[in-house]
Amino acid sequence: MDYVSILGFIAGAMTTGALIPQVIHTWISKSTKDVSLGMYIVFVAGILLWIVYGNLIKSLPIIIVNIVSFCLASTILILKIKYK
Amino acid sequence: MDYVSILGFIAGAMTTGALIPQVIHTWISKSTKDVSLGMYIVFVAGILLWIVYGNLIKSLPIIIVNIVSFCLASTILILKIKYK
Repeated sequence: MDYVSILGFIAGAMTTGALIPQVIHTWISKSTKDVSLGMYIVFVAGILLWIVYGNLIKSLPIIIVNIVSFCLASTILILKIKYK
Repeated sequence: MDYVSILGFIAGAMTTGALIPQVIHTWISKSTKDVSLGMYIVFVAGILLWIVYGNLIKSLPIIIVNIVSFCLASTILILKIKYK
């Protein structure tokens, strides 16, 4: 893998990693009152578009990072709907 | 602008737009107790790496979207440090 892709993966690990504490917090507290449902639906849909964009420009970091983000954000979205 | 870049900008508007309610909430409430300082420092540093990555692969949507994200996330970080 070239150094540009490695840089992309590091960037992705840092920005997507920031979602993990939110998932853990939501999972443990079962509280999602500070999380807006509408905002999360737009966010998850936006992540899906990034995956499409990553495929179109053939950027593996964008595809992989956004698949991970999609899993994390979908978990919060499901918890939000379940515990609302 | 080609349709691929337009798709990237729409994806970015949706995922970065999700940060705006958090900025407004933090600005009005002056409360950042639910926001981790360490997490935000990593997040902001990750956004800077995305800007570098966007330049290297010459993707305008990645550059522009992450410059906007950097401004929003930095605002939350400054409020966090100011009101801690």
